[in-house]
Amino acid sequence: MARTIYNFAAGPAVLPDAVLEQAREEFRDCRGSGMSAMELPHRRPLFKKIAAEAEADLRDLLAVPDDYAVLFMQGGARLQASALAMNLAAHGRYAAYINTGHWSGGARGLADPYINVETAGDAAASHYRDIVPPAEWRFDEHTAYVHYVANETIGGVQYHETPECEGAVLVTDMTSELLWRPLDVSRFGLIYAGAQKNIGPAGMTIVIARRNLLGKPLPITPPVLDYRQQDEAGSLLNTPPTWSWYIAGLVFKWLKAQGGLAAMEKVNRRKAARLYDAIDASGFYTNNVAPRARSLMNVPFLLADSALEPVFLEEAEAAGLANLHGHQSVGGVRASIYNAMPEAGIASLVEFMGDFERRYG
Amino acid sequence: MARTIYNFAAGPAVLPDAVLEQAREEFRDCRGSGMSAMELPHRRPLFKKIAAEAEADLRDLLAVPDDYAVLFMQGGARLQASALAMNLAAHGRYAAYINTGHWSGGARGLADPYINVETAGDAAASHYRDIVPPAEWRFDEHTAYVHYVANETIGGVQYHETPECEGAVLVTDMTSELLWRPLDVSRFGLIYAGAQKNIGPAGMTIVIARRNLLGKPLPITPPVLDYRQQDEAGSLLNTPPTWSWYIAGLVFKWLKAQGGLAAMEKVNRRKAARLYDAIDASGFYTNNVAPRARSLMNVPFLLADSALEPVFLEEAEAAGLANLHGHQSVGGVRASIYNAMPEAGIASLVEFMGDFERRYG
Repeated sequence: MARTIYNFAAGPAVLPDAVLEQAREEFRDCRGSGMSAMELPHRRPLFKKIAAEAEADLRDLLAVPDDYAVLFMQGGARLQASALAMNLAAHGRYAAYINTGHWSGGARGLADPYINVETAGDAAASHYRDIVPPAEWRFDEHTAYVHYVANETIGGVQYHETPECEGAVLVTDMTSELLWRPLDVSRFGLIYAGAQKNIGPAGMTIVIARRNLLGKPLPITPPVLDYRQQDEAGSLLNTPPTWSWYIAGLVFKWLKAQGGLAAMEKVNRRKAARLYDAIDASGFYTNNVAPRARSLMNVPFLLADSALEPVFLEEAEAAGLANLHGHQSVGGVRASIYNAMPEAGIASLVEFMGDFERRYG
Repeated sequence: MARTIYNFAAGPAVLPDAVLEQAREEFRDCRGSGMSAMELPHRRPLFKKIAAEAEADLRDLLAVPDDYAVLFMQGGARLQASALAMNLAAHGRYAAYINTGHWSGGARGLADPYINVETAGDAAASHYRDIVPPAEWRFDEHTAYVHYVANETIGGVQYHETPECEGAVLVTDMTSELLWRPLDVSRFGLIYAGAQKNIGPAGMTIVIARRNLLGKPLPITPPVLDYRQQDEAGSLLNTPPTWSWYIAGLVFKWLKAQGGLAAMEKVNRRKAARLYDAIDASGFYTNNVAPRARSLMNVPFLLADSALEPVFLEEAEAAGLANLHGHQSVGGVRASIYNAMPEAGIASLVEFMGDFERRYG
């Protein structure tokens, strides 16, 4: 079935065509079981095989070192932003947070009940249109961990390099970017990512954590959120979100079939360059993020005449370019162009933008 | 597509044929959106409509009073067993727990970090093959709430009546029974239920709570688990498990189409009676639960010769009667016969049991 629309939603977001097609084909009969993947009990061999394959494929894609746990959790990045503080608070006197926008500011507040939090860097001076370069981060050896958001989904602000953070435990929310390119996991203490961008359906959150950091949770940590307990149970301490896990497994296999994350990075860079080039060449569309920090996943932009934005969004929707609305807190236009957005979608958007400018500019 | 196997899994469990068929048909194009339900952003009108319809249908099915919140949460009943204690601890000096088996004993431990817990009744004397009658529950006016598990999924022990508990806040885990029959919600302070039995796919947990109990969470409560905050946000404080919510909505509509919960109760009583009658008539199969406490959802039974159990399970599986294994902690056989198990499935199981007994008995 050909895709008739392009979905630019920030998340839940577009899934790969091939993944949807496979899931549809085996919807009533997963791997010959006679049951839907939704109906598979999580402690029987077939689901365990699906789960183990997904974990192995994810480890393979990211070359996750063996001394790291890979967990399939629930609750979204927001719950895990609380949980990671419960799990890591014992490692130092305070936690250092870098504030580059909506999600990093929020993560600091979510950790606050469990550990003293300090702002170790803030992009306020740039109106959150830039990163805080790691050279400007301020924290000392008493910090339990240093937290930053690799890609701010709303502001469209992204760290293009993994921060140098020697001696400190680096923790990052990669919800809207994990899997867009290869990553050196060994540089991090803990990575977490809601699934609903590059991984699969909403309702699952991946946590990748160095195992020697685990095992000292605060006493108030619910067992389901205790990373050591979940690691020992293979993320099956309780019933996991089996369908999301299954679909994520299909996404991981699809990524491998595309050539892995190095191949995805090339495509993603082409997609983002094409869109930013169109914006910069126009004079009609504007992206205000500092060039060194422009997100390759979420591209927010404004129209010269903001009164035209509703018209733009309505006409785009009618042209099959769906969910281009900016986040409710900021408005404007935002194109989220994760792994599953094909290059043809970018071409279609750029063509529409040019046409709209000619008619209204 | 005709169902070729009957799935007796305790959860994740069988879903209604009609629900699966509808979901398959609109898998790539949910309500004419051109997108899968998995790809719908949670803050746009279409998903909000799907979500609101599901809540309205659930309220309708259970006749939930207006002063009760209906929440679509994550984390499973185990996380909510922690969360409910965080949310309700301020209401008294301690929490009273009734222990009738695996899940009720576990729930007590999960609440322990947040409130003093006391066992107000224990079925140990019956080896957890019976309920503790409400007349024997022991607690005083200082209790924040009284917690019991309406149906013990592993032991197959069920309260057939809602306990009289005047003056106390009654809290119950209904994971493996919610929606099997009508319920007087006003008798409860809080009801919680993992979705993966009678509601929909794993990864979602329903919480129904009287609103005047909410708003006094412990300071360590993560906002995502703060029932007042989630109620005010329409369960959209963060990205919800959208696919599970969508499928649950289809299940609710299916239940209404069957005639609602009064109609389901009649069918469920017929199904359970047929299976227990076959067990009791046999001399070959045994269910050890006290008759007043036999579960109408989960029917565990033993074979006279336990060495035959693996043979029974293997032959059953080959005959299309899937996932009849007892819980890993107790072994034996268990038939879970939730709403979506058709009467033909019971007939098929009873026929197989009779045939097996003739050949091996």
